[in-house]
Amino acid sequence: MNARLQRLLPILAWAPRYTRNEAVADLFAAMIVTIMLVPQSLAYAMLAGLPPVVGLYASILPLIAYAIFGSSRTLAVGPVAVVSLMTAAALAPVAAQGTAAYLAAAVTLAFLSGLILLAMAVLRLGFLANFLSHPVISGFITASGILIAASQLKHILGIRAEGDTLPRIVAGILSQVSATNIFTLLIGAASVGFLFWVRKRLKPLLVRLGFKPRLADLLAKAGPLAAIVVSILAVIGFGLDAHGVKIVGEIPAGMPPFALPVFDAAVWAQLLPAALLISLVGFVESVSVAQTLAVKRRQRIEANQELVGLGTANIAASISGGFPVTGGFARSVVNFDAGAETPLAGAITALGILAATLFLTPLFRFLPQAVLAATIIVAVLSLVDIKAIRRTYAYSKADFAAMAATILLVLFVGVEAGIVTGVALSLLLFLWRTSTPHMAIVGQVPGTEHFRNVARHAVITDPAILALRVDESLYFANARYLEDRIYAEVAARPALQHVILMCPAVNMIDASALESLEAIAERLHAAGVGFHLSEVKGPVMDALQRAAFFDHFRGQVFLSQFEAVRTLAGLAIRTEKGAPVPAPVA
Amino acid sequence: MNARLQRLLPILAWAPRYTRNEAVADLFAAMIVTIMLVPQSLAYAMLAGLPPVVGLYASILPLIAYAIFGSSRTLAVGPVAVVSLMTAAALAPVAAQGTAAYLAAAVTLAFLSGLILLAMAVLRLGFLANFLSHPVISGFITASGILIAASQLKHILGIRAEGDTLPRIVAGILSQVSATNIFTLLIGAASVGFLFWVRKRLKPLLVRLGFKPRLADLLAKAGPLAAIVVSILAVIGFGLDAHGVKIVGEIPAGMPPFALPVFDAAVWAQLLPAALLISLVGFVESVSVAQTLAVKRRQRIEANQELVGLGTANIAASISGGFPVTGGFARSVVNFDAGAETPLAGAITALGILAATLFLTPLFRFLPQAVLAATIIVAVLSLVDIKAIRRTYAYSKADFAAMAATILLVLFVGVEAGIVTGVALSLLLFLWRTSTPHMAIVGQVPGTEHFRNVARHAVITDPAILALRVDESLYFANARYLEDRIYAEVAARPALQHVILMCPAVNMIDASALESLEAIAERLHAAGVGFHLSEVKGPVMDALQRAAFFDHFRGQVFLSQFEAVRTLAGLAIRTEKGAPVPAPVA
Repeated sequence: MNARLQRLLPILAWAPRYTRNEAVADLFAAMIVTIMLVPQSLAYAMLAGLPPVVGLYASILPLIAYAIFGSSRTLAVGPVAVVSLMTAAALAPVAAQGTAAYLAAAVTLAFLSGLILLAMAVLRLGFLANFLSHPVISGFITASGILIAASQLKHILGIRAEGDTLPRIVAGILSQVSATNIFTLLIGAASVGFLFWVRKRLKPLLVRLGFKPRLADLLAKAGPLAAIVVSILAVIGFGLDAHGVKIVGEIPAGMPPFALPVFDAAVWAQLLPAALLISLVGFVESVSVAQTLAVKRRQRIEANQELVGLGTANIAASISGGFPVTGGFARSVVNFDAGAETPLAGAITALGILAATLFLTPLFRFLPQAVLAATIIVAVLSLVDIKAIRRTYAYSKADFAAMAATILLVLFVGVEAGIVTGVALSLLLFLWRTSTPHMAIVGQVPGTEHFRNVARHAVITDPAILALRVDESLYFANARYLEDRIYAEVAARPALQHVILMCPAVNMIDASALESLEAIAERLHAAGVGFHLSEVKGPVMDALQRAAFFDHFRGQVFLSQFEAVRTLAGLAIRTEKGAPVPAPVA
Repeated sequence: MNARLQRLLPILAWAPRYTRNEAVADLFAAMIVTIMLVPQSLAYAMLAGLPPVVGLYASILPLIAYAIFGSSRTLAVGPVAVVSLMTAAALAPVAAQGTAAYLAAAVTLAFLSGLILLAMAVLRLGFLANFLSHPVISGFITASGILIAASQLKHILGIRAEGDTLPRIVAGILSQVSATNIFTLLIGAASVGFLFWVRKRLKPLLVRLGFKPRLADLLAKAGPLAAIVVSILAVIGFGLDAHGVKIVGEIPAGMPPFALPVFDAAVWAQLLPAALLISLVGFVESVSVAQTLAVKRRQRIEANQELVGLGTANIAASISGGFPVTGGFARSVVNFDAGAETPLAGAITALGILAATLFLTPLFRFLPQAVLAATIIVAVLSLVDIKAIRRTYAYSKADFAAMAATILLVLFVGVEAGIVTGVALSLLLFLWRTSTPHMAIVGQVPGTEHFRNVARHAVITDPAILALRVDESLYFANARYLEDRIYAEVAARPALQHVILMCPAVNMIDASALESLEAIAERLHAAGVGFHLSEVKGPVMDALQRAAFFDHFRGQVFLSQFEAVRTLAGLAIRTEKGAPVPAPVA
């Protein structure tokens, strides 16, 4: 089979050789994921401000699209918490929750995300995801988790409260807390407690009761479903909805509504920035999950093919009445642990969700919103990673600054402001770090051919020669710093006759740095100082030659610093004031 | 004297020790610069869409402010071509040329630029100028030169034509070309021809006539003044203004109008982005001129102090009815060549311009606009640097792409769009370049302890060991690439038992890359492959230790790649298919 075609359609790599064993494994994994995904789909749709059934729609066709086009064997796509939160933030300025326009905007947002992801695949722009540094993503997810949990508290209390930032959410809850519905609170608090218990304690308990660890683990994942079933029965049995417990209500049963999103230039333009962010964040999250799982089985993830997989999944979500989707962490791990072998597990999961949509929606009518909120809270609080914050602080203040800015802005201004500022700040800080690279004046270690930092070692230097080692690639952000530093050193040394730039750590010299080197050479020449290079790497040397740098370069290029100093010390015979320069030790 | 105070007020470094010799030199230089600056000031004000006298206002107080606060001894500030063009572009959407609102906006723009430069000084944000790479600046200046020259053609032809992009300017001229005023065209064309002749030929001619080269050079700089005097006499003598030759017209004589800019939040907000760009471009231009000159005399430029100098100069321009100023290339070189020793030369120049403003403005009334346009055209065409474009293309396609985008956008969309896109693209391309760093699989050069790229050298490798050398700092933009590359190599080598990452060119590992290294280590461990580091630099090793990286790191860190392979080859005893691994040659 054509390898190129197989790369474009990963399904061709596994489907023709599909075995019975794989089918059994996939079927089992799909059942487990379906059980987990039904409540999650309903909950994340609610988080996005959409009718719960939209979450089910977003968990059918996208899974099939990903199974065909995605490169991960075990990634489980669908609605996820962070993207749902971003969806709510993106849709808020476009339309009011509960209106047809809001639903239409959600469908459009998924379509735009899909188009962006596919465009990124065609233009091979997957590297754009690298703009999102780990600290920014980690901070973003932690802050989103806090924000999501806070936003769900109103459902636990059974009150109405609006707010898209932490202070507004808290203020909204405080102003309404007296209206708390006691039955809702009981159900909500019990659900949160139960779900935390399931997450932390159920598996050890089951193991002690004699279950195999893997089965115990999988049973524990079905905890949310148990909460849902029990709470539905409680609502029906005690008529709690008549006592003010808000329930999901009527859900239209049947196939997802197939349609293309309506084109409205103003709405599309308004949603575009959010769609871009959602695409990038979703892509980064998804790829990192996919890669974690792929490596365990020594499989490969093609970043570009993942863009195609997620892009088609979002288009699929859009044309089947859903909202933006991506690869979810928890459900992918469950899928993997349950033994999924091929993306067919995802396709079977889709059939399971479709069955739920067709036949189980009448049951969900009596599901309390507080239970969905509890599901969300327990899920997202596990995203809050305080240890990562502490660790980033200890490792690098610059990375921590980007992380802290992201967290604070997400909590106090908004999710989009947070991630945009985080990305801008991490870029700025990176440029700032590389724009003032580590540079050391070096001298010769007595009796050797080695040269070390004069500030750290007892070394021999020559007042007529300045040897400067630069520990960074030279590019536009540090080219002027290099110039400034060299001029400053030259200005401080009246006896100076030669400057040697030692380049063993220079991996690249861009056009800006090239011009700076030429300017340095020319200006030092005008000041009567020689300018030389040493230990230039092969590829850098090639590039300099290509640019005809050496046509006008009056200095010398030395293979080693030792050679440079030995050669130049002989030339550096001072005629004015000062003692003759001692020759360096060979 | 307090060294800190001297740094904040560079005037304290030279004024107390001012000598008679310096005074003579400064006075002479100031006279030459004044003669050059008067026509330039008038012309650049016209280019900015302002009354010519505003150019004179902008050349008085700012020079005195810079003399006190600037760190360059010889920089000559005032209106310059590129910043004037940017000023015109910034003011166009705010008000119509010729209105009081336009003038007020120009004053506000200078004030904002001054505030931004001072804020950058306080926050030590001078490094922001590094965002502007050489190719972007070079492309920007070349395109601006073309745009400015094209925009002045209408004055040479004596027609009215609007347009802020090259196609619109050309279309405007073509639609009006039939209205060309023949007298204006004669004066304009003669001026352009004369000024080009002065620039290229006058100096050699004067030298042949027995003038000393330096004096000949300075006399040639007075060419524009000669064109102005002759053309004024011609207008008066032949009454050309009655024949449709547009003249500068009445200029109010007297002191500049001192006032603070009016605060209008909407206008300030509208001008802010342009003020930011003008500040950055002006700062970069100015610093590079100042540095060129300072190095020739082994003086120092403090980038931060330059921000203060230019910031106060712009505030001074604003409160004395001027528009944004910065250090000019041509006039600074003239100042330097004429022998200026201290910034007092600038202050004396300011007095010269003040005298011109007070007493010569009645003469300028009959100055043809075509002569000012000719002055501008000849000045800016020297900014067009085709060689730099060709050279950048040869050196680096990435740098060329940023440059080409800047040029095309400046010409066809606008100056601000051009520079913003150029900066964004150069950042993106830099990230893209460092996001896919050069990585080489290395093997041992037989009989040595050296390791080289397997693709370039005949080296010994071990199928159980993958040695990968990465030639770049590891940070967020390439952290995932590193992961992906290593996973791909591992997936392709079923017999692999150890991966060694060789880090001699890794100058930095940021928090993202740290997490990636941990993820690699953990995932490879899960796949039964050892992960090790070799030749890690001291500072990088320190940072890894600070982050407790080694608490969980199961691999080893080797001082040399040779040691790594020697140690691991002993451990890598393969039990399955395949021949036993030969020990590497010691």
